[in-house]
Formats: sequence, structure tokens, C-alpha cells
Amino acid sequence: MDRKLRIGVIGAGRIGKLHANNLVNRVPKAELAAISDVYEPAAKALGEQLGVKYTADYHEILNDPSIDAVFICSSTDTHSPISIEAAKAGKHIFCEKPIDHDLDKIKAVLDEVKKAGVKYQVGFNRRFDRNFKHVHEVVKAGGIGDVHIVKVTSRDPEAPPLSYVKVSGGIFVDMTIHDFDMVRYLSGSEVEEVSAVGACLVNPEIGEAGDVDTCIITLKFANGALGVIDNSRQAVYGYDQRVEVFGSKGCITADNETPNNTTYYTAEGVTKEKPLWFFLERYNDAFIAEENAFVDACLNDTETAVGAFDGLQPVRIAIAAKESCEKGGIPVKVQG
Amino acid sequence: MDRKLRIGVIGAGRIGKLHANNLVNRVPKAELAAISDVYEPAAKALGEQLGVKYTADYHEILNDPSIDAVFICSSTDTHSPISIEAAKAGKHIFCEKPIDHDLDKIKAVLDEVKKAGVKYQVGFNRRFDRNFKHVHEVVKAGGIGDVHIVKVTSRDPEAPPLSYVKVSGGIFVDMTIHDFDMVRYLSGSEVEEVSAVGACLVNPEIGEAGDVDTCIITLKFANGALGVIDNSRQAVYGYDQRVEVFGSKGCITADNETPNNTTYYTAEGVTKEKPLWFFLERYNDAFIAEENAFVDACLNDTETAVGAFDGLQPVRIAIAAKESCEKGGIPVKVQG
Amino acid sequence: MDRKLRIGVIGAGRIGKLHANNLVNRVPKAELAAISDVYEPAAKALGEQLGVKYTADYHEILNDPSIDAVFICSSTDTHSPISIEAAKAGKHIFCEKPIDHDLDKIKAVLDEVKKAGVKYQVGFNRRFDRNFKHVHEVVKAGGIGDVHIVKVTSRDPEAPPLSYVKVSGGIFVDMTIHDFDMVRYLSGSEVEEVSAVGACLVNPEIGEAGDVDTCIITLKFANGALGVIDNSRQAVYGYDQRVEVFGSKGCITADNETPNNTTYYTAEGVTKEKPLWFFLERYNDAFIAEENAFVDACLNDTETAVGAFDGLQPVRIAIAAKESCEKGGIPVKVQG
Amino acid sequence: MDRKLRIGVIGAGRIGKLHANNLVNRVPKAELAAISDVYEPAAKALGEQLGVKYTADYHEILNDPSIDAVFICSSTDTHSPISIEAAKAGKHIFCEKPIDHDLDKIKAVLDEVKKAGVKYQVGFNRRFDRNFKHVHEVVKAGGIGDVHIVKVTSRDPEAPPLSYVKVSGGIFVDMTIHDFDMVRYLSGSEVEEVSAVGACLVNPEIGEAGDVDTCIITLKFANGALGVIDNSRQAVYGYDQRVEVFGSKGCITADNETPNNTTYYTAEGVTKEKPLWFFLERYNDAFIAEENAFVDACLNDTETAVGAFDGLQPVRIAIAAKESCEKGGIPVKVQG
Repeated sequence: MDRKLRIGVIGAGRIGKLHANNLVNRVPKAELAAISDVYEPAAKALGEQLGVKYTADYHEILNDPSIDAVFICSSTDTHSPISIEAAKAGKHIFCEKPIDHDLDKIKAVLDEVKKAGVKYQVGFNRRFDRNFKHVHEVVKAGGIGDVHIVKVTSRDPEAPPLSYVKVSGGIFVDMTIHDFDMVRYLSGSEVEEVSAVGACLVNPEIGEAGDVDTCIITLKFANGALGVIDNSRQAVYGYDQRVEVFGSKGCITADNETPNNTTYYTAEGVTKEKPLWFFLERYNDAFIAEENAFVDACLNDTETAVGAFDGLQPVRIAIAAKESCEKGGIPVKVQG
Repeated sequence: MDRKLRIGVIGAGRIGKLHANNLVNRVPKAELAAISDVYEPAAKALGEQLGVKYTADYHEILNDPSIDAVFICSSTDTHSPISIEAAKAGKHIFCEKPIDHDLDKIKAVLDEVKKAGVKYQVGFNRRFDRNFKHVHEVVKAGGIGDVHIVKVTSRDPEAPPLSYVKVSGGIFVDMTIHDFDMVRYLSGSEVEEVSAVGACLVNPEIGEAGDVDTCIITLKFANGALGVIDNSRQAVYGYDQRVEVFGSKGCITADNETPNNTTYYTAEGVTKEKPLWFFLERYNDAFIAEENAFVDACLNDTETAVGAFDGLQPVRIAIAAKESCEKGGIPVKVQG
Repeated sequence: MDRKLRIGVIGAGRIGKLHANNLVNRVPKAELAAISDVYEPAAKALGEQLGVKYTADYHEILNDPSIDAVFICSSTDTHSPISIEAAKAGKHIFCEKPIDHDLDKIKAVLDEVKKAGVKYQVGFNRRFDRNFKHVHEVVKAGGIGDVHIVKVTSRDPEAPPLSYVKVSGGIFVDMTIHDFDMVRYLSGSEVEEVSAVGACLVNPEIGEAGDVDTCIITLKFANGALGVIDNSRQAVYGYDQRVEVFGSKGCITADNETPNNTTYYTAEGVTKEKPLWFFLERYNDAFIAEENAFVDACLNDTETAVGAFDGLQPVRIAIAAKESCEKGGIPVKVQG
Repeated sequence: MDRKLRIGVIGAGRIGKLHANNLVNRVPKAELAAISDVYEPAAKALGEQLGVKYTADYHEILNDPSIDAVFICSSTDTHSPISIEAAKAGKHIFCEKPIDHDLDKIKAVLDEVKKAGVKYQVGFNRRFDRNFKHVHEVVKAGGIGDVHIVKVTSRDPEAPPLSYVKVSGGIFVDMTIHDFDMVRYLSGSEVEEVSAVGACLVNPEIGEAGDVDTCIITLKFANGALGVIDNSRQAVYGYDQRVEVFGSKGCITADNETPNNTTYYTAEGVTKEKPLWFFLERYNDAFIAEENAFVDACLNDTETAVGAFDGLQPVRIAIAAKESCEKGGIPVKVQG
């Protein structure tokens, strides 16, 4: 039988559970070796369910020489320090987004990863969505010629709890960060300047917490193209995730995913299915694909699909967008 | 200014009014000259509204040497005798479908038309629908290769009054006749054999009147292709008119027409517009196109788009379908 | 017969011809009375084709007491002076967009129209498109709740000649002006601030002429909503005209219009029709609807659907957008 | 950890491999215990790949008391005898379709299964397709009222090899059998009478082998509804699998599945993705769902979703359809 990659999952919250379960059931070349969580009951529950050892101390995972790689699924503030420790321990690293909110801390991770020569993949799972991947490939193959306009619509089905909003770092670094990665992925170019306008239209408490819940971000790319992202924390009809790339030879759009392809006709109207409710449903296959891609990159010693630099750039854009929004929409250069 | 075709409209019922109004407003090369209806108040109302002379006796129209052509929009039983009189009077003829329910009477019309050398067009307006016309053209141009399967879905939004059903000649000659024309138009081949099954599922009184309200008709074409038509007297969501032609190199489908192209997303669902309600809405442009085509054929002395033979064949198929249905679905040859 | 509105058309260019033909053939309550064009052969050709009197001097139309209304279809620089003269002559006025590029001149028109008590309608034909009209009505009826985001995609199939670009006043006042009207129409609110970024990606000569051919404009509305418009002078697949309004209770989108509703399946792919090529095809029915609406407003002494103030506001927004774009995308308040 | 169902797979051909792989990777409550194939190298290859024991003699599986259930994936002629042996051995049985071509042999299976009290599920995987399942549920819940018309379009992307056609039992029992199951599933009623017309339009050699490659089957249901199936052995654009159920309160349709939801616009046209190529792609998730359903039924001692009687009825309909087609389309009662 082929060699499998032995993996420890650090963090047994929602996303840690998701990865751990997929690694067991959907990633044939992975072998889940251990689970850790600072809250031991969470580690225990998941470890027992999946039949692997568990611990409250992730250092046990880092110190286990039989473990090849880690999935860092702990709270955001621990991503960069654990990344550095894991790199020093020689583990390949899959890190949930964002690496950090602080550019210097991210750069320190990049340095350490480079020094250690380990693989590093950031959890921008949407790149593995079948629709966005296809758009990326068509654009890359020249199918729409030179890119002129990139558009991303990204709306959550419901706003997170206020407690979450307060520690989230704000909509740009928490939510739009996925879209900042997406526009880089789709355009094949770096974002040089952004301007952002925001408003608090969904829930005034979000505004009182110093954040916005609705925003539009305009982008200028290094290759001359323009872009626009629109976000809302609440689309009552479900998770609205669409993209469009327009260029000199054409345009390609990606529509939402739905539970099925039926159409229902009655005297009241003609009804299609709503988009899948949220990211766990919409990006289920994308999560599995990113996990498989990471495992393959580690086993075959190839580049990861979403490298450490890809974790740095969206944070830079998010910082610029936040500044622009706070200053009423003035254009802000993305720090190089 | 270019010469216009002077036209008399015989019959001022629903379809006569429609043609008369279009001839005045939407057919630039037509000049409405007169209206007749055996029920004089109807003729008077329409004539006064449109500012043309009117009469209870259509012979006044046939005897008017300044009139070039007639639209026969009177009751079905008068179509063939008036067609013959009009041909003898040297008028070009646009005749609503069906020419007659009796094959011999239709053949008599064909003979007289041929002898008189006048133009004859039958009111199979659906051939002028932008969707079906495009399907016809793609098929004719070889776009789907050899035709293998022709499918027509044709459902009315609501059943006609029972009084109408009783004198209609039955669903096959009254309703399916349009579909029999359509399959000839789309396949480019003659129907050789049909088998039909019917049921009374919408309104039991239709069954008591000796008719069916739901049916499926299977067809064999001279070129070897197969076909199927499904009909219902009542689709509660509106007029359902779709076709599909499948062949050795592909398939082409035509969907319904809707009031607009919007999509509406709410927490309850995703809603598209229902099909246009009935034939006056759906085929409005098709009526105008068939009228213009007739006027052009008369003025330019070219073939009409839907000739007298095209009026004969669907009746032949309808007669065979009715026999098949009455005999429980046995295959019946279409009389040659 | 009902009274008809006697109309003189001033300007026999492309748009003047379109209106004159429609007034004759598609607007039952209109009577085309005269045509004028400073280039007399153009006036003559159109007048003779349509069988009405013609002149090189539009004052003949203004001085004709039998004429009730004028359509001002002459060059943009003449719109405001002729509007003022026509108002003084007591004629109802349909004026092509924009009224002027200069706010003071537009205000002078508004004053004169008010003083004269004549009807004034601006040629924002897209409000009469069946799709956008439906979106407007759903939004107005509260169908999507409070408006949060308004999106307009508006791309021409091909760039105009450079000679036209040079005198057009720039993309914002020439092309985006329709979209500025549309966002007001769809949002039901005034635009307070805009920021615009532009690029020259289609044709460098447009840049040399001091204009851009691709742009994205972000908008802030008085009711708190945000908006975004994206424009391109060249969409190789045809005229791309879509809108989307997103709010607290849902979202409504309007897709393009196509020549028909067929789908074509072959070994190479599944093909749908491209959007209708350009505005004459796409907005044909909208032109007819706006003409009928104007005639009705004049005959029934009701408000026009697109009043003089609706002609002023988009120019104000366009001026702000131009300034923002020239200053690299800084936010600019719309002059009140 | 929960108890797992220990399963032996009999037959290591295409479908046996598919089930064995899914049981290992996608059915958490299943444990693959053994593989058998009369061609030992096939059994060995699959057994070694999946790390389970293998044998050329399926009796080893039947005699292994640690094995709870079997998947019968061997050649069609062995389905009924192995079913009987497996039932006698007290194994739960998942049997690929058809159970047999001979009604008496199927009935013998039903008897034995009943006597043994084991679970029996037939491999009508399409019932587990997300689209058809949703249509079934809407119809069952009364969403379209009384069923009037059931339509199934079912076309393969390419004809099987002639060698296969010759031993297939003919199109009705080999290909349409899935559609006969589908119409029962969707209508919720038994088929009482069928009439079928067929033609050889794809490949004349299929005709020489005594079969047809294109057919249309009309159905009458016990509840009064009508139905129609159209089949082709070759749709060059891919696997075409659509259904429609029309009734007194509405209609519901299910469209094909595609690789993604993108739309591509160029000067040449607007392109959507083709349907997924064939059943392995289209019904991948449906296979997994049916396997999970079988395992659940066995572990929880509940009814299987597709019982032995569901394996009998489609063969009865296929036999009637074949007779009708051979007799030129006369209606044939389905044997009760």
C-alpha cells in the first residue's frame, strides 16, 4: 500500500472537526494521527470519535517524530506562533486563514517556513471550488483575452454573533479576505490599490462595535485591470458566492451551487432552488479538494496550491481596504 | 409610396379582431379595406373602431374589385366554402386553421386555389414564433445532423368552455393540430403513422362529451425519425409551449417565453417568471410576422410560408390520431 | 376617433429617425406632423418616406400652432436652447439625453419648463425596458425590503469612432449617464457621493483623447445604500445590460435579452444565444413604450415618467464621477 | 465504535469495483470483508488494492459466518441463482439490476428472500440522484396535485459495443429498465399498459442484431396518468437524463448535472457546460447514497429503499415494451 501522510490536527473547533473528519474519510493518502485542543474535552470527544490519540498540548504533536504534518485550526491569534514552532519542528503546515492580522508576524512565518524547507498551505478553500477553479483556468488559458474587470459577489446568509464580530478584526480581514484571495486567483495579478466604502445596514450593533456589515471595494491590479467586490453579512436567501471575469475576448461567470437542478411550476410561480445555505454546504467538496492537494504536495514534494505568500497578500489588501473605508473611501495603496 | 395590399377581413370574432387590428397597426404594406361578420353589430363595432367599411355579407368583400385578399376568420365550418368562393373571385386567401375537418372538402379547396392561381396561407402562426423558427432553421441547416426524435410539449393554461369542446371536433383536430403542423415543420418530414393515448384527467365533463383532455401521441416520420407530443387542456402555471429536436449531431430545445428575464431571491425561494399566459400573449409577435409574410407573398408573388397542403396534412394526422385514441392506442397509418 | 397628439421631430439623425418611425407606426395616439433637420436633405428624405412636411428650420415647427409637442433629437449642444424656445412656444417637450453638460443651462431649462407649464420628458428609455421596470416595481413594492446594494453592469458591444469620443464629453456623461439614471430609478434614492476609477484597456487612442473606456463607479445613496456600476466600451459578445438590487429581504436580478430562448447541444458544447447586439435591438420596445408614455402624459395632462429633474441629476452625478476619476478615485460629493 | 456491516462483493468487474471502492471509502458503516470473481486475477487485483481477502469462488463468501451481506455484481445470468443461494445462506443482498430477464426466476428470488427474511435491494441507483429524489418527494407530498403526465428523457452518450448489444437482452431490458423503475418511482403508481416504437438510427448493426437504438414508449398508469419515455443509445453531447412530472396543480422538472455552473461569453456565442459524460460521473453520488441506504437498512432492520418487488416490475414492463415494439407499437398489457 502507498505511503500515507501522518497528520496532527491542532484545534478541535468547527473547522478542526471538519478537517479531521475529512482526513479520515475523504483523503485516502492521509492518516490522522492525533488531535489537540487547549480545551481538552473537545480534543477528547473528537479523538475518541475518530479513534486517534488526543491531547490538550499541541507540543505533543510537534514533538512526535512519526507525524509528518499539522493542520493549524486553532484561534487566529495562535496561527503565526504555532506556524513558526511547527516549521522549526520540521512539520509540513496547513494553516487556516488568516495567518495573522499583523504583517510582520506573517513575514516571520514566511521566513521560518523558507528556512525550514517545509510545505505551507493556507486554507483559501474557495480556490478549489469547481466553479471558481474553472473560471481561473479559462482566464489563465487566455479564454477571455486580457483581463479588464473582475467582479466578486460574496454575501453570508446571516451575520455572526456580535461577540464574534468584536474579535474578528473587522469585515475586511475576517470575511473579505477570501475575496481578496479570489481576485488575485482569478485575475492572475496583484492588487495595487483599493478603495472601500462600507455601511451598517444589517445590524446597527455591528456599527457600534466599530465595524460595517455591507461594503463595496474597488481594486486596481498591477496588470491594469479593475475589480470590484461587494459584501454583505446577511443575504436572507442563502450564501451568495458568484464571480465574473470580463476581458478583451469575452467574459466568464460562475453562478451559485444549489441542492438540485429542479424547477417547480405552479399557479403561484416558477421556483428554482435557493443557493446552498453556507460555506459548510457550498464548499464541502472544496475542503476535501484542498486537503487532498496539500497531502499530495507533501508526499510528492511539489509546490502547495496556496503558498505562504498567498497568505500574506490578502492581509495586505485587507489592511488597505480597512484604512480606505475608515477614511471615507479614499484610494489606498497596498503595501508592497 | 409603395403599393399596399388591400384586405378584407371575414369574421369579427376574437381572431378576426386580432388580425384586423394588426393589419392596421403592425403590417405596413397592408391596407385594411373592409370587415364582415354575419352578426352585423360585431362587424359594425370593429369597422367603426378601425375606420373601415363593414358589412354582414362577406360577398360584398368578394365582389369588391379593389380588394386583393381576404382573411377568413369566420367559424370553422365556413372556412372551406368561403375559401372556394374567394378563390373563384380571384382573391388571395389567408385562412385560419383548420381549413376543414373533412379531407375531401380540404382537397376541393386545394383544387380551386390551384385553378385560380391565388395565394393561400393557413394560420399556423407558431411557425413564426422566434424560438420555433430558429429551431427549424438549425435543423434544416443540418445543425443536429439526421433527425432522430422530435418532441413537442403543448399545454393550454385552462380548458375551454364545455360548449366549445362539444363543437370543437375533439382535442386532436382542435388543439393538437398546431402540434401536428409543428412536427412537420421541425422534422422536415411527413408523418406516416401515429398512435395516441388519451385520458380525461382535467374535467370529467370533457370525457362525457366524448373527448379527452390529456394525451400523448407517438409519431413515425417518413425519414425514419420518431416523435412524441404531449397535450393537456390545463397547465395551471400558464401556456406551456416547448419543443426539442434530437439528432445524430446534437439536440436543440426551445423554452417558453416569459414576461421578463428577472430572478427574485428571498428567504422563501428563488422565483422566475411564469410562461406568458396564453396564445394571445405568447404568439403576439408570431401573428404579426405571419400577417407580414402573407402580405409579402401576395405583393411579391412568392410562395406563402404555410401553403394549402400544409393545411391538409395536419388534419390527416389528426384524423389518424383520433382513430388510434378511440381504439385504445393502436398504430394508425396517416391517409396518404 | 380619439384626439391625437400632433408632434414635430427636430433632428433627423439616427435617433430622430427611430422616434419618427415609431410615432407613425407604433404610437396610435400620436400624429407625426413635421420633421426638421439643419441638414435639409436628411429632413427631406425622412419627411418624404413618412409622408409629412419637412424643413431645415425647426422654428417652423415651433411656430406652427397646430403642433402640440416636439421631440428634440438634434445634437447635444442644441438640446437646452431648443428646449427653452420650445417651452416658450408652449410645446410639450420630449428631449433626448443629456439635456446639457452644463448644470446652469439645464437649470435654465427647468425654470422655463416650469414657467411655461409644458410637459417635459427626458429620453432615459431604459426605464421602460420590461426587465428594469419589473425590478423597479418589485423594489418599490418592498419586495426586497430596504435597499442595501444596487449593481449595474453596462457594456457596449463596440467602442464608438474616435471622432465621436472626442466630442462626447467623456464616458461618464455620454455612456454612464444612463446608468446614473438607472441607479436612481432602481434605488428610489438620490446619489450623494461617488468615486470612480477608470482605465484605457480597449483602445489606447481613447486614452490619448483624454477619456477612459473601462470604469467602475461606487455610489453612496441618501438612504444609506451603496451602489456600483461597471462599464466597458467593448464587450465582444454584445450589449451587456444587467442590474441587481439587494436588500434586507432579498435580491432581484435582471438578465440580458436574447434573440430567442433556444439551447443548442452538440459534441462541442451547449450554446445559448448571445445578448441582443446593441441598444436599437435591446431597447426597441422600450423606445416605443417611452413614446407612448410621453404622448399619454401630454394628452391626459399627467406627470411624465422621466421629468426635467430626472434629466438634471444624472449630469450632476456624471460631473462628480468625472472629477473623481481624474483625481484617481477620491470620493466626490454630488452637487446638490 | 458503532457496529459495521461486513460485506462481500461478488463480481469484480466495473460495477463490482465501483461498489467495493465506495464501501471502503465512502460508506462509514460498511466493512468490506471479501471479494470474489470467477476470473481470479480480477478478484486478486481488487482484493490486494483494497487490502481484503479474495477468492474465485463466491461460496467462500456465502459460507463465511462473519459476513453479513453480499453485493451481487456478477453477470446478469447469475443474479437470480446467487440471490437464492445468498438468501438461503442468510445474507442480506444488494443485487445489481436486472435480477433476471425471466419473470419466474425473479419470482423464485422473491419467494426465497421472503422465506429467509433477509434484506434485498436492487441497484436502481437513479432513485438516489438528488434531482430525481427531490422530484419524487415533491410529487409524493402533493406538490403538483394529481399526476397527469410523467416524462423521462434518457439517452446514453455512446452506444455499447455490438458484442454487448447482442447479449444485453435488448434495449428495453438493458437500458430502459432504469426508466421503467423511474416512472414507477416518480408517479407513485404501477404501469398497466405500454406501447413502444423503435428504430435503428444510430448504428445499423444494432438493427441487424435484432435490437433498436432509438425508441419512444408510451405508458398508462393504474392511477390514470399517462407517461412517455424516449431513449437513444447515442447523444453526442453526453448523458442526457431529465424527468418531468406534470399534474393538476403544477409541474416539476429535473435538468442534467454539469461539471460546474459557469457561463462563457465570447464573440462566437454563449456557452454552458455539457451534461456529465456518463453514469459513472452523473450518478457517482447516487451510488454512494444507495450503498449507505442499504447498509442502514440492514443495520437498523428497516425496509430497503428499492425492494425485490421493485426489481420485478420493471422487467414486466420491459417484456411488454419489447413485445409492443416487435408488433409495431400495439398496446400491450403489463403482466400482473
